[in-house]
Amino acid sequence: MSEFFNVMSPLPAIDLLTGTVSLVGTERVKTENSLGRVLANSEYSDEELPRFDRSSMDGYSVRSSDTYGASDSLPAYLEMVGEIPMGQKARVSLSGGEAAIAYTGGMLAEGADAVVMIEHTKISPSGLLEVYRPVATGENVIMAGEDFRRGDLLAESGVTINHVQLGALLAVGKSHVVVRKRMKVSVISSGDELVGPDDEVTEGLVRDVNLYTIAALVKKMRATPILFPRVRDDFDQLLEVGRQALFESDVVIFTAGSSVSSRDLTSKVVNQLGEPGVLVHGLSVKPGKPTILGIAAGKLVIGLPGNPVSAVTIFNMVAIPIIKYVSGSTILTGDNSISAILDSDLHSSSGRTDYVRVKLDQPEEEIVASPVYGKSNLISTILASDGYIEIRAETTGLYKGALVKVHLDPIG
Amino acid sequence: MSEFFNVMSPLPAIDLLTGTVSLVGTERVKTENSLGRVLANSEYSDEELPRFDRSSMDGYSVRSSDTYGASDSLPAYLEMVGEIPMGQKARVSLSGGEAAIAYTGGMLAEGADAVVMIEHTKISPSGLLEVYRPVATGENVIMAGEDFRRGDLLAESGVTINHVQLGALLAVGKSHVVVRKRMKVSVISSGDELVGPDDEVTEGLVRDVNLYTIAALVKKMRATPILFPRVRDDFDQLLEVGRQALFESDVVIFTAGSSVSSRDLTSKVVNQLGEPGVLVHGLSVKPGKPTILGIAAGKLVIGLPGNPVSAVTIFNMVAIPIIKYVSGSTILTGDNSISAILDSDLHSSSGRTDYVRVKLDQPEEEIVASPVYGKSNLISTILASDGYIEIRAETTGLYKGALVKVHLDPIG
Repeated sequence: MSEFFNVMSPLPAIDLLTGTVSLVGTERVKTENSLGRVLANSEYSDEELPRFDRSSMDGYSVRSSDTYGASDSLPAYLEMVGEIPMGQKARVSLSGGEAAIAYTGGMLAEGADAVVMIEHTKISPSGLLEVYRPVATGENVIMAGEDFRRGDLLAESGVTINHVQLGALLAVGKSHVVVRKRMKVSVISSGDELVGPDDEVTEGLVRDVNLYTIAALVKKMRATPILFPRVRDDFDQLLEVGRQALFESDVVIFTAGSSVSSRDLTSKVVNQLGEPGVLVHGLSVKPGKPTILGIAAGKLVIGLPGNPVSAVTIFNMVAIPIIKYVSGSTILTGDNSISAILDSDLHSSSGRTDYVRVKLDQPEEEIVASPVYGKSNLISTILASDGYIEIRAETTGLYKGALVKVHLDPIG
Repeated sequence: MSEFFNVMSPLPAIDLLTGTVSLVGTERVKTENSLGRVLANSEYSDEELPRFDRSSMDGYSVRSSDTYGASDSLPAYLEMVGEIPMGQKARVSLSGGEAAIAYTGGMLAEGADAVVMIEHTKISPSGLLEVYRPVATGENVIMAGEDFRRGDLLAESGVTINHVQLGALLAVGKSHVVVRKRMKVSVISSGDELVGPDDEVTEGLVRDVNLYTIAALVKKMRATPILFPRVRDDFDQLLEVGRQALFESDVVIFTAGSSVSSRDLTSKVVNQLGEPGVLVHGLSVKPGKPTILGIAAGKLVIGLPGNPVSAVTIFNMVAIPIIKYVSGSTILTGDNSISAILDSDLHSSSGRTDYVRVKLDQPEEEIVASPVYGKSNLISTILASDGYIEIRAETTGLYKGALVKVHLDPIG
């Protein structure tokens, strides 16, 4: 397939791939271990929470009508008839004019409909409870079912379970949940010029960076990276490693060199791995044009550009949405972004999406984004910036003072 | 120590603790495994990157002066004298009027100072290279040291290493780095009313939630949670578990009940664990007043409020900054926040910091924050909101239309 076939814009490319690729399977896990997993089915409460009327204060269970009109000068006097210890069923039943000790989180006495805070009471010398403030029905009480009722939605299918959803599921007795399997993502690096972190670097050789930055981004997605370091630029070797990666993982990522020959090599290998093979060969973006997207054996295969800045940018803007789709997630963007004011004009070619690195600063109330110029293939350019803005293909630039969305680089 | 001693505002409380507690130790790890670790010392490059002049295009190494004036109608003609394969030292030296094949990322021929893109050339029938565009010195070349020079800062002490810093360190041959040890954080839950996720819930009992939500938040900080589930509300038992936790971990967190008696129990245990014991007993905030902060054996000890919403809020606003300090991190806030327009007035008591849960919406260009009302101790309140805003103690509220900072809940 020629270099100039199938060059696409990023969004249609993402749509094309997500329309074709399969999702990972599901498994049942303990809810307490489900943080960061993708929920496979929406979960609803089949219990009430709380399960009983609970006091939300330390004080006394009362019938609210017994306290009406109570004040500092004219307290209500109630007879103390017992206590409901924490974690125990109420064995005390109130008649008119009676009160029982209640603890925060404990059950109300039977017949009680409110709790008087301990701060608004005193025990009289004769042992009666003096109440100085009236309470309304339900005051200082969490009623049964007030937090969750049966049928309430706890967490939607496709969410990445956070600490709150995890707590809500456990609170109503969902000790296990069905989640998507954790994705395995193979990262293959190829290039005759590459050496590993501990290897000697003789002239003409270069230390491999993309393998580790991409594996780090995979880890940030809570997927498991499988690293295939430094294959030679050789069709048979690369195909063999590609087949092994396809067998072992849900997604295969090639980080090859940027030269035309190494791009052609990756595309030939992807086509050989299985049908349909390469679907997108080149994106109309800068940086990141030499990107390959394909599917083999129902699995997503991505060829990232060799330039480290392009590789990271394309991973964030194109690979993450598709990989998240494969993970069963319904929230496909991977980045978090903030709004900022652009501090200079930016020109761009129409018909091409530009990703421009920016540095953020907040001299006064507003956050200001300044473009970081410099060659787009320098690591120092990413290091010196906080994220990037996207200039859509249909525009020819952005003006100083424009409100822009800055896609922030993930923190560690 | 009485309940009403040492009630503090959150910021002075954070300052007091960070001024007293010790940091975790350091260890040497492989850089490729350092994602998310806190760097112990600033790292500078002691190499140049690239180590040699590299071509940034596929094309031909040339002496730029040989191309001056070249155009479509009047190309420059150069003699082809060889090729520098990827990963190999340049063995070709150019004299005037000569060119050599160059690959993206490969070395330039000796004597060359620029690269002509392959798109701007043709091989003539006689085998000469026809060049149709002039190139300037350094064009399509990344010069040695252009990305990093010796002494350039790669990553500052106290940063959490992200994929870019990890890549930069590896690129200049830093195969190992010294990082702070991964923190171990014990989470102890106590309460006579609590049962585990798989236990039967008879009347008066409640499923334990805080243990798991707080452990999830600890994990999100890339620390290792150690769970001590469901100790009875008994001084001796709680002290014994507290001692074990203090021995095994760098930070100890108690999530106890909300009743006065259980708070007193936690504070007594913290005082017994070691000197100086409880330093802050109560915060002037809502929700979250019954918070305990202390130090024992040089280690941070935190007693979180029992109410699950308060526990999560205090963890985010108070515990995270102190725990991050202990981790050696120089960036102490744990949350990410965005700006939004408040959609209604919010009143607040002066002298107390209020944390108000809000839901975000973006009907048009601006993001709007709507307060989520409802009892502050309901899990459904957190589930229905996206984060919270802080109303500082010195103000008495915020007005509709105010620009507010929303601290977003972490995603899973």
